[in-house]
Amino acid sequence: MTEKKLFLTFSILNLVFTVYILCNDSTTWSPRWTNSAAAEAEDAASVSCSGHGRAYVDGLGVLDGNKPPCECNNCYTGKDCSVLVSDCPVDANSGNPLFLEPFWRRQAEKSAVLVSGWHRMSYIYQDGSYISEELERIIRKLHKVVGNAVTDNRFIIFGTGATQLIAASVHALSQINSSSSPSRLLASIPYYNVYKEQAEFFDSTHIRFEGDAYAWKKSKGDDNITQVIEIVTSPNNPDGKMKRAVLEGPNVKTIHDYAYYWPYYSPISNLTDEHLSLFSLSKATGHAGSRFGWALVKDKGVYEKMKRYITLSSMGVSRDTQLYVLQLLKVVVGDGGEEMFHFGYETLKKRWEMLNKIFSMSTRFSLQTIKPEYCNYFKKVRDFTPSYAWVKCERREDPNCYEILREAKITGRGGEMYGSEESFVRLSLIKSQDEFEQLIDMLKKLVSQEVAGADSI
Amino acid sequence: MTEKKLFLTFSILNLVFTVYILCNDSTTWSPRWTNSAAAEAEDAASVSCSGHGRAYVDGLGVLDGNKPPCECNNCYTGKDCSVLVSDCPVDANSGNPLFLEPFWRRQAEKSAVLVSGWHRMSYIYQDGSYISEELERIIRKLHKVVGNAVTDNRFIIFGTGATQLIAASVHALSQINSSSSPSRLLASIPYYNVYKEQAEFFDSTHIRFEGDAYAWKKSKGDDNITQVIEIVTSPNNPDGKMKRAVLEGPNVKTIHDYAYYWPYYSPISNLTDEHLSLFSLSKATGHAGSRFGWALVKDKGVYEKMKRYITLSSMGVSRDTQLYVLQLLKVVVGDGGEEMFHFGYETLKKRWEMLNKIFSMSTRFSLQTIKPEYCNYFKKVRDFTPSYAWVKCERREDPNCYEILREAKITGRGGEMYGSEESFVRLSLIKSQDEFEQLIDMLKKLVSQEVAGADSI
Repeated sequence: MTEKKLFLTFSILNLVFTVYILCNDSTTWSPRWTNSAAAEAEDAASVSCSGHGRAYVDGLGVLDGNKPPCECNNCYTGKDCSVLVSDCPVDANSGNPLFLEPFWRRQAEKSAVLVSGWHRMSYIYQDGSYISEELERIIRKLHKVVGNAVTDNRFIIFGTGATQLIAASVHALSQINSSSSPSRLLASIPYYNVYKEQAEFFDSTHIRFEGDAYAWKKSKGDDNITQVIEIVTSPNNPDGKMKRAVLEGPNVKTIHDYAYYWPYYSPISNLTDEHLSLFSLSKATGHAGSRFGWALVKDKGVYEKMKRYITLSSMGVSRDTQLYVLQLLKVVVGDGGEEMFHFGYETLKKRWEMLNKIFSMSTRFSLQTIKPEYCNYFKKVRDFTPSYAWVKCERREDPNCYEILREAKITGRGGEMYGSEESFVRLSLIKSQDEFEQLIDMLKKLVSQEVAGADSI
Repeated sequence: MTEKKLFLTFSILNLVFTVYILCNDSTTWSPRWTNSAAAEAEDAASVSCSGHGRAYVDGLGVLDGNKPPCECNNCYTGKDCSVLVSDCPVDANSGNPLFLEPFWRRQAEKSAVLVSGWHRMSYIYQDGSYISEELERIIRKLHKVVGNAVTDNRFIIFGTGATQLIAASVHALSQINSSSSPSRLLASIPYYNVYKEQAEFFDSTHIRFEGDAYAWKKSKGDDNITQVIEIVTSPNNPDGKMKRAVLEGPNVKTIHDYAYYWPYYSPISNLTDEHLSLFSLSKATGHAGSRFGWALVKDKGVYEKMKRYITLSSMGVSRDTQLYVLQLLKVVVGDGGEEMFHFGYETLKKRWEMLNKIFSMSTRFSLQTIKPEYCNYFKKVRDFTPSYAWVKCERREDPNCYEILREAKITGRGGEMYGSEESFVRLSLIKSQDEFEQLIDMLKKLVSQEVAGADSI
């Protein structure tokens, strides 16, 4: 009887095992041609870089069959980025938005995308355009959930970064009225240096960079003939302030650069509704490397001219990039931006608290201040937490602030790059946590010298 | 005894099963965060489109949770592309290189790439550049295995398609000597229309498109002062012939557009060794949609100017695209290009045989002819099998060849777009097999009318 029972038990057990194995082999999803790509990605992601770097599938040496190496954050070195270089200079120059990287690492599963070797080989999507309709839809959705821009009755154009769209929009607007003299491109000081550099480098016969919009208003305020294009960056790069157009009139066209108009950096205080606005993936999700931006355009003629510009300069944006961006924005829009914007905002808020604390102890250096405003996104009054510190050296004996900071081993960008004075420097606050902490350490040192210096007087 | 044996057998079996399950769960590779991306890709790839279309992961409606729909080849319709539209007009206009799609479908596993949500978010690679070193290496390797270009002592620049690099190189060369009058851009007729369109649209003060290089040589052959840039497209678009520079002299700069210099289209008769050459992924692997091209540049000054152009227009090429291209080229270089170039060449060879057969029956239409040459890649004398048929309408009463073909439901590109005469039309031969077969059918009809007409006389 006992043996019979045991026999029965074993039989049942065997049956259960057999069914388990069969089911496991047949009904669970078993990847096939995607196997090795997935394994490669997992391998790279599993390389440990001590939290101070990361390895990428296309890292140096992978063609030789090597495991992708760690690429370390600034001031970290060693095979696994575990060695901190002491007294290492801080790079606060670039607006590299790596502060959002931790968020995307947490969203590993949802944000991953597998590109097949035959993905959209054609020049065109099925509607004959260079633009993914699904991506266009999700961009409209993104603006809706954030509440930063009206997208109804707007054309959308994609660019290889907002960079390409700045050039395209300036070019399109400069060709609206082909008067004999070129259109003047203006922006109020301090302004993003690329506006000037592009206009001067591309040397179109139809455009000339003319500098400060306020200066123009003062000297040529009555000129209703010369065609003028003003770029309004709001929040502004470098100082994070909300900007409005300085110029108006029948001869004035305006481009609104809203690259920084996201809840991380500033309150979303109003739903913008302009003729031509630019946005950049870099500052929206942190993917600067993907080179993706978009424009919202009201006027059909301007839209057509911009489209022609994008066609002739690059025949649109890479279709694999468009697929990638779609996947990223699916994650963002999925929860109404909740997790990403909160994470990013909390990160920058903490950074600004630390920064303000340091600068509050200084009379030699000052920071920009911006009054809190109500944010329609977070539904509360909140501080501005801009991407950049716009530092001023207050002493007469410190005319060149960039140099002062550089001596203290902090590399920023000098005010003159923004049409402003050398007493200003822009410091990037949106890089990795490591880099921000290095910046804080160096700033502490610098400011403590000042206090110590005052004590010794 | 028998029961004991059975008992033992069952025990062992249970042990084996247990071990199997444990091992299966722990030691085989089990994908984790890559799971759903892989499943999504497999799902899309498994959509059946009757061999006349394909579904992509970012197809219309996926945001609503729908399965990606079939996107059908021209003249096919229905949910699964199984319905052939009768008497449907043929589109032989675009140089969409879908003839290589079947190759990439066969290479599904090797060519797939999984992009993580935190892939290279930074503006720069670790060396501070916008260029993947591994990708640069494999491009040099590709040229080595094909034998179409010297890459030693050359700088490599990436562009958002060769399109962007045409603009960048023309711009760079026009700024070498800043004389008061603009550089003249020339190309010998028939030439690729984008050269002209870019120069005219971007309206740089330093460049003016001047048309035919032969005409310039004839009228200004002695002018050693005016700065001149000649673009040499070889094999040529539209007619597939090998071209040499027409102009020379101290005031002449040359850009070699080698977009079509791959074994599919022409014999690789010599290892090119020029100052500035352009290549395009579109015509090399068929990935027109990925917008990727590269330039080989000898002179450091020109290289720096081109780099500056790429920086100011787009801050380099999307890092996810660079990863994708690396994966594709790994497949190609893996077997020395063997499989891809053979497949592509055999495809075009068959297409040209069919085409030649049809045109041999016509006196009304003629095709370009190019003498066979020895190909260093295939190690044999072989025919040219260009991407495009350069059709001439031979009759006086057919002055506009584009219109003649359009009436016969074949859309090509008129000769005047290439600076040539209206008696020429370019027909694309590198689209999908479906589209080529439609073209052949329509051409047969057209030519048979001619024969029937002759019979009736």
